[in-house]
Amino acid sequence: MKKIIQYLIFIPLFLASQEREDSIMINKIYDYFLSESNCYENLRYLCKKIGHRLSGSVNAQKAVEWAYKTMKQTGADTVYLQKVKVPIWKRGYTECKLMLKDKSIPINVLALGNSVSSGEKIVAEIIEVKDEIELAKLGEEKVKNKIVFFNVKFNPKNVSTSKSYGECVKYRYIGASYAAKYGAKACLVRSMTLCNNHSPHTGNMSYDDKISKVKIPALAVSYRDADTIALLLKIHPDVKMELYTENFTLDSVESFNVIGEVKGSKYPDRFITIGGHLDSWDVGEGAHDDGAGIVQSIEAIYVFKNIYRPKNTIRVVAFMNEENGLMGGKVYALEAKRKNEKHITAIETDAGGFTPRYIGVDTTRGLYQLCEKWNSLFEPYYIQIKKGGGGADISPLKKLLGIPLCGYEPDNQRYFDIHHTKEDVFENVHKRELELGGAAISAFVMMVDRYFE
Amino acid sequence: MKKIIQYLIFIPLFLASQEREDSIMINKIYDYFLSESNCYENLRYLCKKIGHRLSGSVNAQKAVEWAYKTMKQTGADTVYLQKVKVPIWKRGYTECKLMLKDKSIPINVLALGNSVSSGEKIVAEIIEVKDEIELAKLGEEKVKNKIVFFNVKFNPKNVSTSKSYGECVKYRYIGASYAAKYGAKACLVRSMTLCNNHSPHTGNMSYDDKISKVKIPALAVSYRDADTIALLLKIHPDVKMELYTENFTLDSVESFNVIGEVKGSKYPDRFITIGGHLDSWDVGEGAHDDGAGIVQSIEAIYVFKNIYRPKNTIRVVAFMNEENGLMGGKVYALEAKRKNEKHITAIETDAGGFTPRYIGVDTTRGLYQLCEKWNSLFEPYYIQIKKGGGGADISPLKKLLGIPLCGYEPDNQRYFDIHHTKEDVFENVHKRELELGGAAISAFVMMVDRYFE
Repeated sequence: MKKIIQYLIFIPLFLASQEREDSIMINKIYDYFLSESNCYENLRYLCKKIGHRLSGSVNAQKAVEWAYKTMKQTGADTVYLQKVKVPIWKRGYTECKLMLKDKSIPINVLALGNSVSSGEKIVAEIIEVKDEIELAKLGEEKVKNKIVFFNVKFNPKNVSTSKSYGECVKYRYIGASYAAKYGAKACLVRSMTLCNNHSPHTGNMSYDDKISKVKIPALAVSYRDADTIALLLKIHPDVKMELYTENFTLDSVESFNVIGEVKGSKYPDRFITIGGHLDSWDVGEGAHDDGAGIVQSIEAIYVFKNIYRPKNTIRVVAFMNEENGLMGGKVYALEAKRKNEKHITAIETDAGGFTPRYIGVDTTRGLYQLCEKWNSLFEPYYIQIKKGGGGADISPLKKLLGIPLCGYEPDNQRYFDIHHTKEDVFENVHKRELELGGAAISAFVMMVDRYFE
Repeated sequence: MKKIIQYLIFIPLFLASQEREDSIMINKIYDYFLSESNCYENLRYLCKKIGHRLSGSVNAQKAVEWAYKTMKQTGADTVYLQKVKVPIWKRGYTECKLMLKDKSIPINVLALGNSVSSGEKIVAEIIEVKDEIELAKLGEEKVKNKIVFFNVKFNPKNVSTSKSYGECVKYRYIGASYAAKYGAKACLVRSMTLCNNHSPHTGNMSYDDKISKVKIPALAVSYRDADTIALLLKIHPDVKMELYTENFTLDSVESFNVIGEVKGSKYPDRFITIGGHLDSWDVGEGAHDDGAGIVQSIEAIYVFKNIYRPKNTIRVVAFMNEENGLMGGKVYALEAKRKNEKHITAIETDAGGFTPRYIGVDTTRGLYQLCEKWNSLFEPYYIQIKKGGGGADISPLKKLLGIPLCGYEPDNQRYFDIHHTKEDVFENVHKRELELGGAAISAFVMMVDRYFE
């Protein structure tokens, strides 16, 4: 009986002290981020001294060198480059206007990544459609030689703007092939945003030769100009558009993932990956997308070197080419598979540097079931643990190694205001929101390192 | 046995259908806010056509008339004005500079609300202190005839910026009396912010004649200039400040709370109050503080008139004089008490129009215990129900009527960047964040109306 009582008392005390310890460690990590961390100044450098950095560009190479040096300076045990072949696409000159009688109205557009050039200037009528079904109904007769305009609006009723993005982005991605199928000369898509301004949002597109073998230019039109075109089409259905766009697709070149490691004290050959992407679109400065994720991830090196010593090896990865190819993510997973590495989990931060909301955790190998118990520990920091998580760059890891994935999810109300635009600049990142995100990621990874076997 | 089984089945089905109904209603309210509500355009009008509106000013009267008209237009069954005597304080000309040898360095300051004038220009040395204890140690010998500078920084390690504000604001509020006690000529306080810029933050101050009967001018100095002063004092302890400030305290005048009601279907004589404050500081446009709260509250009139018919009477109150007297809140509670009105609860929205975090609910009469069960209903909207709530304007209701209070709490990382500054303007409010806050408040009040007896 005495033994049982001792046992009964021992366990709760032990648990309570463990929880206290966790709570103290989490607090230390947050204190560091909110008062000493370099992530804001690192982001300033990346945005202001390097700027945007599309795969294969001179800036992307500068960013690789900067990430290598910064990981070293932050205290990584080892830093190395992992070769990645990346496609090169270059934006040239683009001009777009509506022609109405003797008036011309300039229209703000951005060519989509991977778009072909127009060749000659295109002068054509515009066909506005809501989806590919409406387009199919119109058929070749109505579409041939025209410019197809996918005027698909984000549903403002979705609380999550990511949901709206998910509902609309296929028209950006594959709209041009749908349009080409019926003989269109070019494809315009309404910018992926709820933000009522003149700034177009670029992003990647693709030509699907199962739909059409013809490649036509694809461009995003700003929110306001999308409304202008729609309004003018109502009054003057025969309004014409004059469109010129020049873009260049060059041979793939060598680039790199940048990887920094803090060696595990107990399982140096087991890995937890923390990552974001180093490349960005070629407008703005890639501040939220994904400079924020890069500097948050790099700061984890400091945490695991100086605040909490991890059992597993922590790998911070600055992935290359998330925006237009995902080659970095693919190579990283393939190499892990080839080397038969043991990976525990991976977390991605690529949803902006906004105020934290939650960490999504998938249920594979019971990770979510373990983590959801930590909700009370994270409550003071306004972080929840929710079911389901991942990210583009780490998704090949799950496919190849079957490991559970996690995703850091900040508030997304403002994200698609600036996503892939010239407004995605350093000034639009809030210092403390960025820091709180970094703290959440490091604190969460510390808990996983501690308790996930 | 059969009966028991029926009973057992009946209850869960009943509950499930009730929850489904709640969930559908909440969704309808959110849909309205995110796609049709007028709160953003109402805020634009209040900020851009009226502007800042300190109690007793011409603009405050315009705001009263606007609120009256807008509540009517939004569909209130009755709208009326409640007389409130308000103090008048007017900002005059202020100038502040550091004098170093033959150089003068301009310093960005704002007189604090209620501050007296300097009379003649004050030229004096500066004594920097961290708190009133340090000031007391220095004593009259070191402080007399000098300008006391409370250089008290927000603690960046607090995750909640409101906590930091709570820790520091007493130096803004009562610092001048502490300084006057030891013979200081004026009192400067570091602005209540973590935002590193040149914009000073005003706010209310008071003279406590238990500490000192002498009234000296009190001013807030911007974050950067606070650093500049501190740095210069280290190098040149004898640097002098030249300070002139002119402010006017006039006789109280009559102003109004604006009250709009939607009559309860079952208990027309029982009230739930939703409110924010109509007055603002006399810099910026009072957009977040508290135009946001006003337009969110007014929109509840539409909801309770058109989407959900309340059992209790819903009272939307645009309180007057929260910033420098709280007379509106006091009068409202006194009148409720005098008329022996039955109030159920009250919710205040005066923490900015930022992205929603939670609704704080106090435990009086078991309200929190009831509401916390709704957490799963609000989860899709990123709203939590947390223990402890209230607000300045509704606090007299609790004191006089003993009712439980609730407070709407948006994310506060950006709040003290703009609080009481010229940057608190319409452009700094995000449309969807404002709308999501309004939806959260109306949806929560619907639930309280439905289930709190």
